[in-house]
Amino acid sequence: MKIIDISWPIANFMTTYKDKHSIKLQQTEKEESDFSRESMLCFSAHTGTHVDAPSHFLKDGKTIDTIALKKLIGQCIVLDCTGLKEKITDQDLAQFEIKKNDIVLLKTKNSALPIDAPFDKNFVYVGKNAAAYLVSRQIKAIGIDYLGIERNQPKHETHKLFLQNDVPIIEGLRLEGVPSKRYDFFCLPLKLIGLEAAPARAILIEQ
Amino acid sequence: MKIIDISWPIANFMTTYKDKHSIKLQQTEKEESDFSRESMLCFSAHTGTHVDAPSHFLKDGKTIDTIALKKLIGQCIVLDCTGLKEKITDQDLAQFEIKKNDIVLLKTKNSALPIDAPFDKNFVYVGKNAAAYLVSRQIKAIGIDYLGIERNQPKHETHKLFLQNDVPIIEGLRLEGVPSKRYDFFCLPLKLIGLEAAPARAILIEQ
Repeated sequence: MKIIDISWPIANFMTTYKDKHSIKLQQTEKEESDFSRESMLCFSAHTGTHVDAPSHFLKDGKTIDTIALKKLIGQCIVLDCTGLKEKITDQDLAQFEIKKNDIVLLKTKNSALPIDAPFDKNFVYVGKNAAAYLVSRQIKAIGIDYLGIERNQPKHETHKLFLQNDVPIIEGLRLEGVPSKRYDFFCLPLKLIGLEAAPARAILIEQ
Repeated sequence: MKIIDISWPIANFMTTYKDKHSIKLQQTEKEESDFSRESMLCFSAHTGTHVDAPSHFLKDGKTIDTIALKKLIGQCIVLDCTGLKEKITDQDLAQFEIKKNDIVLLKTKNSALPIDAPFDKNFVYVGKNAAAYLVSRQIKAIGIDYLGIERNQPKHETHKLFLQNDVPIIEGLRLEGVPSKRYDFFCLPLKLIGLEAAPARAILIEQ
């Protein structure tokens, strides 16, 4: 069994969405009766690899702790979209064999950006028509290799198409060097009660 | 495939180790051009279900991001220790069939405590001899159903026995109602660079 870690490392120096969040990992060393280290963490729920729940943009949407984990576990397919410069359209996706209940991971040129680069506002994103197409294919979840899945579309139309159809959005994957094929996928977000998102660890298991 | 979530829910009101850490989940709602929610998280790396890495107590110990995930994934056995009142000894464990490379999860009466109870300083813990016994059985990882694995032993002898032998410690599992038997286990901690621990989500998969 080969495990491939596709999670964005979390560190004080990492890229954050639109460079607007600070990341604070603060470690203290003690040497009282014995040596020990202890850390405090302060960051956005949308840090690094994370899952967006429907309540991120929908008033009555499900929160992250109520998303069934089977939505984030199962057969996945990594789609090679590295040739695209700006956005992913429904036509770009039509060439791939996407099955019902697939977890679809979009590998783009975003994955080549260093983990600590300034936020790239020209990242490759998912257009509204591509989102509608993926929903029509009845996928279980969608993943992308940047800290957002859409740029500045009006009313967050890409997010809403997925979230209204109960398709969790996994942002901040790292897919550089990952062959585009099928895997078993496990994404486990923290169990944050009542929140709209949670940081997660995501892995592929080679079949 | 049946997924059993054995993670401690993270919330402002949850139990923390010795009641000494505050948990801050702070959600903001915005209604500018569109409705959205966004949260900030502030808590200890030892919150809820979490994994201790060797660097927690060993000066030159491995940090959480360098623990091989295969140590936290694989065959596990849930051991019924619910009859014990104070601590788990090597003799208590001798009755169980523990195999090399097992991930061993200790189910005790701790699991019956509510998730928001004041910290119980009389929790059932793992004695030094039990730790030595488990290390001698060459287990991959150890898990327990409370926010600590030892009470006030001198020099953290239980932790150190595991950590010096490259056995990650998973604390804060919730095993109430979980039958004591074998499962597939996945525990994915956040990929926190350079830290001594990380919050995690942990699940069992029924075979």
